[in-house]
Amino acid sequence: MRALQSLRARLAELADLSALGMLAAWDQRAMMPPGGAAGRARQMATLQRLAHDRGTADEVGGWLEELEGRAGELDDLDRDIVRIARRDWDRARRVPGELASELAQAAAEGQAVWQAARAESDFAAFVPALRRNVELAREYAACLDGGGSPYDALLGDYDFGLTAQRIREIFGRLATELPPIVARAADVRRTDPVGLSIPVEVQQAMVRGVLARVGVDDEGWRLDTAAHPFSASIGPQDTRLTTRYEDGRLESVVAALHEFGHGLYERQIAPELARTNLGHGTSMSVHESQSKLWENHVGRHPAFTAVLVDELERAGMVCDPEVLRAALVDVRPSLIRVAADPVTYPLHIVLRFELEVALVEGTLDIADLPAAWQDRLQRLLGVEAPDDASGVLQDVHWGSGAFGYFPSYAMGAIIAAQLWEQLESDLGPQDDALAVGEVTAVRHWLGEHVHRHGRRLDTEPLVEQATGRGLDVEPFLRHVRTLV
Amino acid sequence: MRALQSLRARLAELADLSALGMLAAWDQRAMMPPGGAAGRARQMATLQRLAHDRGTADEVGGWLEELEGRAGELDDLDRDIVRIARRDWDRARRVPGELASELAQAAAEGQAVWQAARAESDFAAFVPALRRNVELAREYAACLDGGGSPYDALLGDYDFGLTAQRIREIFGRLATELPPIVARAADVRRTDPVGLSIPVEVQQAMVRGVLARVGVDDEGWRLDTAAHPFSASIGPQDTRLTTRYEDGRLESVVAALHEFGHGLYERQIAPELARTNLGHGTSMSVHESQSKLWENHVGRHPAFTAVLVDELERAGMVCDPEVLRAALVDVRPSLIRVAADPVTYPLHIVLRFELEVALVEGTLDIADLPAAWQDRLQRLLGVEAPDDASGVLQDVHWGSGAFGYFPSYAMGAIIAAQLWEQLESDLGPQDDALAVGEVTAVRHWLGEHVHRHGRRLDTEPLVEQATGRGLDVEPFLRHVRTLV
Repeated sequence: MRALQSLRARLAELADLSALGMLAAWDQRAMMPPGGAAGRARQMATLQRLAHDRGTADEVGGWLEELEGRAGELDDLDRDIVRIARRDWDRARRVPGELASELAQAAAEGQAVWQAARAESDFAAFVPALRRNVELAREYAACLDGGGSPYDALLGDYDFGLTAQRIREIFGRLATELPPIVARAADVRRTDPVGLSIPVEVQQAMVRGVLARVGVDDEGWRLDTAAHPFSASIGPQDTRLTTRYEDGRLESVVAALHEFGHGLYERQIAPELARTNLGHGTSMSVHESQSKLWENHVGRHPAFTAVLVDELERAGMVCDPEVLRAALVDVRPSLIRVAADPVTYPLHIVLRFELEVALVEGTLDIADLPAAWQDRLQRLLGVEAPDDASGVLQDVHWGSGAFGYFPSYAMGAIIAAQLWEQLESDLGPQDDALAVGEVTAVRHWLGEHVHRHGRRLDTEPLVEQATGRGLDVEPFLRHVRTLV
Repeated sequence: MRALQSLRARLAELADLSALGMLAAWDQRAMMPPGGAAGRARQMATLQRLAHDRGTADEVGGWLEELEGRAGELDDLDRDIVRIARRDWDRARRVPGELASELAQAAAEGQAVWQAARAESDFAAFVPALRRNVELAREYAACLDGGGSPYDALLGDYDFGLTAQRIREIFGRLATELPPIVARAADVRRTDPVGLSIPVEVQQAMVRGVLARVGVDDEGWRLDTAAHPFSASIGPQDTRLTTRYEDGRLESVVAALHEFGHGLYERQIAPELARTNLGHGTSMSVHESQSKLWENHVGRHPAFTAVLVDELERAGMVCDPEVLRAALVDVRPSLIRVAADPVTYPLHIVLRFELEVALVEGTLDIADLPAAWQDRLQRLLGVEAPDDASGVLQDVHWGSGAFGYFPSYAMGAIIAAQLWEQLESDLGPQDDALAVGEVTAVRHWLGEHVHRHGRRLDTEPLVEQATGRGLDVEPFLRHVRTLV
């Protein structure tokens, strides 16, 4: 079948271009001298435009039509390749080129406006850019027109198949159940980690030691420093992690394990999916579930604290395990999402989700956004933002037009807990293994039940396949109750 | 003129793809974990194929034809853009796609065979791959068919306009004049640098200090370590240098200045040439002249030794300037090209040039190559290679099919000397300035007379324009006579 050969060759080309884009983005954040910024933006725009043109070309539609007519002759893998290629092609073709470039430009400009507005803590200065982004997002959603809320169409870019309604049900439970747990944390707090201060060189040795325990080697991984930790999967044997050492405590280790989770997911995708359209993590939520699993269920596991103490000692520092644990799980209401602990963090997401759904559905006027923020902040976390910079202006997402992205941060934590319960039900409790830093069984279980499928299963079907049931918030609630 | 817009847009796209290719190659050599190798080879092949397809497309020929018909309406810059675009398009179109991929494959395979053969010092094992490369090079040259020696067609990829005959005249002088100078070096040698040993941290501080003096800052440059030093110009404000610290003496500083010369060339090309087909150095010889100028005429300048002594002292080490100079210019016959001093180095190139011309023109049988090597080595350098690994198998070039590349190494040194004489004739002697590390005038002179032209002038016209006469070997001979 020549159509299949042609389609697979084109998808391989797109996978290579995507890897080069990933490399360019990694370099931009981890290596590039500042002077390279303008050139890099142009290089990445060119790459993106070429990939878009090659991916949405008429001939691709022709191959798909032919292959859909002969689906009976395809094996399972090729049927999935054609199915997802059709979905991607349809979605991309429904967006006019002009709207796509307007979205890209508004995102770049909106991000710059947001940055300036945040620096001045001036919401009014941000309003026009935000209004434009919301309007463009609605236009974009109308092109994709899934029949439901326009928000659902936006979600499809990050988590195909999830709906605002489904997330609302799940987040409703978080909004009810988490605040009492947070309140209890204040009552039972015994140890305060304020005094803990780990020198950067000790942190670096710890990070290297902990990553080596979970399977990071020099053959196929890199570790660098970045202001905002991230990871980049350039190829199945080329994974790049970053972390930062600024809090003087354990953020470096926790962030490194988080990024390791993202990296491991991409590495354990079945080799036969490489250079196809299925050779990546399936969604933002599932990706975040993998980072959160290594961050929360391994790194913050009470048994794993022994490993941290051990690595700390190897690096020449002694520390009370109680203090380390208090630094790992310091539950208390706060203003800033990225600095929040694992229990309050999802509440920051619930707040943003409610507001961005209302913005996109048109039931909240942009002028009323700061007041709505304060109202929900009070209700969910019991705190008040002293200004817009530490309130409604704190995140880049709305400035860059990324509506529908926030939920994945909390969904990731929820899915991680659900997967971890299933994993321990299948393999038995991991306490003894984690106490000595042994994670081989965890890696294999994740490879088998989550990673290898790549994009063949969407978020909820993947969770069902791994755990025998759909998305379930209860494991996460059980998990956080053990933390306080 | 829409044709001009279309052509310029396509050239900008190709420039962006070339920058991404440069980034991928830099990363491969300086950052990539070894596991990424297979994926990177595929990513780069895809990028190259796309760039080739976009660059040689029929529509480009159409635009060129239209613009050539309306050349009178174009300004000087656009006329040059069209002229060089036509040349590149014609050359690329004359090579059948099948031959191009066979060349690429033979180069990759030949390089692997060469590596194994060198490890075993087994020339016979290399013969079939070398024969294939020579045959393919002749086929390739036949496609380009410049009317002269097939070697001239190959030269055109590296140094358009140069001919085997022109190089033979110049190299003939080297073969006659250099050996007596080398002989004299042995007679007059007073200081032996054998005892010199500079710790790596001191070398690193020295390299940073010296590069800062010539204008390297963190805003638009990087410096990394590489087994084989190289540089990468990702953009006009994003230059990446590498060096190595293995010899325990001054190779790190000399190599860093060498790579700085390459980098500075690309940075000082006129801004209006950016993202056109003219926005790069014009040829291998001129590029090498820039690296050699900073290496030989700045770094090894007797006055500049004061700067090296100063930087060494800042890094906490004291050294006799005489010993430093002896390490910088240690003239003596040797077997290995890449380790040769500035006087014997060109003789290694003369040897390779004579042999590869004979191979390509068919006057030397491959079986006779090792004997021919020994014969010329004896005649030019008075030494004998104990085995093929340190003789005919020492360089990667023939294994990877790069015939016609070697001359640029010596031509670069020759052009550097010619430019330096002109520079000092225009600006006055630079001794006082170099003694305090002041190179602003040198940078400006090079920018004005060499760099800003990009590809608008080919090698010899550029040299003529900068010095008032064609390629001239005498300045180089005068220069090396001052060294011994």
